[in-house]
Amino acid sequence: MSHTVQQIATALGATALGDTGLVVTGVAEPASAGPGDLALAMKPEFAAGLAQGQARAALIWDGADWQALGLSAAIIAPRPRYAMAGLSAMMDPGQGFVPGIHPSAVIDPAARLEKDVSVGALTVIGPRAQIGDSAVIGPQCFIGADAVLGAGAYLREGVRIGARVVIGARFIAQPGAVVGGDGFSFVTPEESSVERVRDTLGEQGETSAQSYARIHSLGGVTIGDDVELGANSCIDRGTVRDTVIGNGVKFDNLAQIGHNVAIGNDCLICAQVGVAGSTRIGNNVVLGGQTGVSDNLFIGDNVITGGATKVLANVPAGRVMLGYPAMKMASHIESYKALRRLPRLFRDVAALQKAVFKARQSD
Amino acid sequence: MSHTVQQIATALGATALGDTGLVVTGVAEPASAGPGDLALAMKPEFAAGLAQGQARAALIWDGADWQALGLSAAIIAPRPRYAMAGLSAMMDPGQGFVPGIHPSAVIDPAARLEKDVSVGALTVIGPRAQIGDSAVIGPQCFIGADAVLGAGAYLREGVRIGARVVIGARFIAQPGAVVGGDGFSFVTPEESSVERVRDTLGEQGETSAQSYARIHSLGGVTIGDDVELGANSCIDRGTVRDTVIGNGVKFDNLAQIGHNVAIGNDCLICAQVGVAGSTRIGNNVVLGGQTGVSDNLFIGDNVITGGATKVLANVPAGRVMLGYPAMKMASHIESYKALRRLPRLFRDVAALQKAVFKARQSD
Amino acid sequence: MSHTVQQIATALGATALGDTGLVVTGVAEPASAGPGDLALAMKPEFAAGLAQGQARAALIWDGADWQALGLSAAIIAPRPRYAMAGLSAMMDPGQGFVPGIHPSAVIDPAARLEKDVSVGALTVIGPRAQIGDSAVIGPQCFIGADAVLGAGAYLREGVRIGARVVIGARFIAQPGAVVGGDGFSFVTPEESSVERVRDTLGEQGETSAQSYARIHSLGGVTIGDDVELGANSCIDRGTVRDTVIGNGVKFDNLAQIGHNVAIGNDCLICAQVGVAGSTRIGNNVVLGGQTGVSDNLFIGDNVITGGATKVLANVPAGRVMLGYPAMKMASHIESYKALRRLPRLFRDVAALQKAVFKARQSD
Repeated sequence: MSHTVQQIATALGATALGDTGLVVTGVAEPASAGPGDLALAMKPEFAAGLAQGQARAALIWDGADWQALGLSAAIIAPRPRYAMAGLSAMMDPGQGFVPGIHPSAVIDPAARLEKDVSVGALTVIGPRAQIGDSAVIGPQCFIGADAVLGAGAYLREGVRIGARVVIGARFIAQPGAVVGGDGFSFVTPEESSVERVRDTLGEQGETSAQSYARIHSLGGVTIGDDVELGANSCIDRGTVRDTVIGNGVKFDNLAQIGHNVAIGNDCLICAQVGVAGSTRIGNNVVLGGQTGVSDNLFIGDNVITGGATKVLANVPAGRVMLGYPAMKMASHIESYKALRRLPRLFRDVAALQKAVFKARQSD
Repeated sequence: MSHTVQQIATALGATALGDTGLVVTGVAEPASAGPGDLALAMKPEFAAGLAQGQARAALIWDGADWQALGLSAAIIAPRPRYAMAGLSAMMDPGQGFVPGIHPSAVIDPAARLEKDVSVGALTVIGPRAQIGDSAVIGPQCFIGADAVLGAGAYLREGVRIGARVVIGARFIAQPGAVVGGDGFSFVTPEESSVERVRDTLGEQGETSAQSYARIHSLGGVTIGDDVELGANSCIDRGTVRDTVIGNGVKFDNLAQIGHNVAIGNDCLICAQVGVAGSTRIGNNVVLGGQTGVSDNLFIGDNVITGGATKVLANVPAGRVMLGYPAMKMASHIESYKALRRLPRLFRDVAALQKAVFKARQSD
Repeated sequence: MSHTVQQIATALGATALGDTGLVVTGVAEPASAGPGDLALAMKPEFAAGLAQGQARAALIWDGADWQALGLSAAIIAPRPRYAMAGLSAMMDPGQGFVPGIHPSAVIDPAARLEKDVSVGALTVIGPRAQIGDSAVIGPQCFIGADAVLGAGAYLREGVRIGARVVIGARFIAQPGAVVGGDGFSFVTPEESSVERVRDTLGEQGETSAQSYARIHSLGGVTIGDDVELGANSCIDRGTVRDTVIGNGVKFDNLAQIGHNVAIGNDCLICAQVGVAGSTRIGNNVVLGGQTGVSDNLFIGDNVITGGATKVLANVPAGRVMLGYPAMKMASHIESYKALRRLPRLFRDVAALQKAVFKARQSD
């Protein structure tokens, strides 16, 4: 992780200034930077921090006077937040997984590993699983029978991929992530009270005690390229068709994707989001943390939900939503401002009633 | 998974029509069905799909004219959704776990495995654990000391059952599920601010900084027959008595059941539901996805909660609830319609105030 | 777990009465207690239970007449709930993990284990990891490269600690807990619609389809002493600086702590709580189950949130909050009472409008 300021700037498509041959070995926030660090001072408010720390080089905001900041070298990037992507990739020390196939891994003889695959300690790979070039399977992972994992995958410790799951290139999964659990699909011999409530919006009618029979998940999960799955997140297999995730979708931790769900490309699914069965989600959708989406809905392209939004109905493309039940964000903010003032409104109306009806009584 | 149309119909208690000796090897949605698939065309809207696909046999809706649909054979079931339970069980290719005891499993010599038990690679079974007939323990599972797992269990990869947990027959658990984590129970030396807030509904009084002491979980978890637990879901052990789950309860992924909770029979607990400590839930209850239930409550039989309902008080039997805080679904829908119209109401009241009080002032 | 009544009382700093040499071997609720159990009868309502059960000794409420309750011996503690901490620790049979280093564990030769460390079956410990005195690492755990785990740790089965994570003394982690997953941090080449929505509170402007680039997590996680982490909970590493957890913080199951979050000392983080990236939380904070806290916020000392509170703005020290969006608990209760009465308010206002404006029209 040793690079000159010039090497970094070149890699980022950015401009290097000053002593561009200076070598840095890490990155740090300005105030805590050591002399070997590249400080991250991407906004003017970090100027004071630079003075406190010891950095001789920094990634600085556009227009900063690097010499006045006491730096020997600087990098100016047109969009510093974006530059962080490339910079952090260069500087990532990684997880220290040892390359190669660990002797304790249990790999079925009928599994097929392409070249330069690494498999960590105590990982299990099932019959006929296929692992693409240069994939890194961390320790204690599980890859089921007939599963396909594309080239360049990086699985952290304890990731579990069920049988027949198909995943594209460059998949990343965090510890404990699960792909291909069975869907949650149960049925009662007679119409159930839940089925009735859906029809009547609240009346379950006469209740009868029924037990549930299991509908097995015959479908799989198909995941595109460049998908990332967070720690302990779950994507269930489909009932008949596959659950489908597009390209470039990023899931944070503890997210839950139900059976038969279809998600388009380039979506962000934040932590603890739940998407119930058979819901379809378009492209470039962002679901904020703890968002819930009911089953069998349609969420259009470019929809954004704020944190903890609970979506109980279809959402057209381009909407920004918030609240429970989800409303357009602007309406939600207006309604909730009103809600806070509601106790006063009751008092106002009582005063009006007194004025009007008492007045009338005394007419 | 090769069956004739007649064999399937017989197994489902359904009626076979046409060339009932036709062999099918899979099931598919009508439009994507191949010539060897049984198409699932359980509603009239699937008729068009049948024409697009290549299925020669289908599970069709009652009253469908199978010959006009171009089929050679058909199955008519009185409740097609229920027929899916039996059909999907017949057609499930399973996870491909290899039968028998994998040599890499670490099984304590004092554990007792009944006949036909399978244990996957790298699974750990602790001292005095008892595993019932024909149980399938997948790879990388953990069964703790003195735990009891009933006959016919099916544990997917990476399931963890803690010490002294007792589970009935035919338990199914998805990857990463945890039974028997310790309860979350801590106490401060003096009365804590949380205890005061509960008494005062909002005033914590004078605050003092206290550290927490741990209350160990001495109880276990007792689970009935025919229970299923979703991926990465958690059921905690009790503090003194056991946490108790009845028969036929089905939990989806990422659900959380706190210490001392008691759940009756035949409940559905959907994904990301949380039930806090010592709450009791009746029979045939359905908790929709992301429902939360506070601690020490009572939820009666046949209660249904919609998605993301947050239950902060007891709920009598038979209620259908929605919202945060939970209300009867009908009241919730009415209140939220009103909430959306609230900004207008403020304008209306302002107009009234102007009319009434200005009028009175000028009287 | 055999102790005399006197030994228990002495350990708890409590008073022993009656036949204080009586030996008990377990604790139980009064009604189900056997003759060898210490019954927990800490409130007068348990008196009837004592009569049903067979306990000869009990932990009783202050002022109870132990002889009239039919007991041979009793313990009176000034704060019985607090006494449960010490009592349950004395009586905990534990998980039955076998002491010592299991031969199936995969321990890197460059890892450093201090004295009396136990390592369970099939656990992986990476290069240069340091494990403190008397730590108990359960089966199937993972400790990454260069991670530091303090003395007296107790990890249940399947806990995962990523590379370079630093944890203090007496850490406890429940099954499947994850520390040090990568943060969820992605950036688009151009300004994204989410960035615009944050500025405009709801308008995303012209949408363009962009893919996300990954910002790697270069920071680690630093955790203080006496922290407990629940089953399948996740604490992500920081982007540049570390995610920081103070001393004495207790996390329940399925909690999610994002990158760069800082949490003070002695906080309770209940089940399924989510705290988004870069939020700072003070000391002695209690976040109720399913609470969500948006990113980049500040939560002051002694704040308490009720179950499912969704915090979308900073919260000053000492506040008790509830609702979505979070309000002061008292305001929330008042607003929601009003919300339930809202449909009637609409009718009242309609009646007023009719009275006032009709009256005026007829003036």
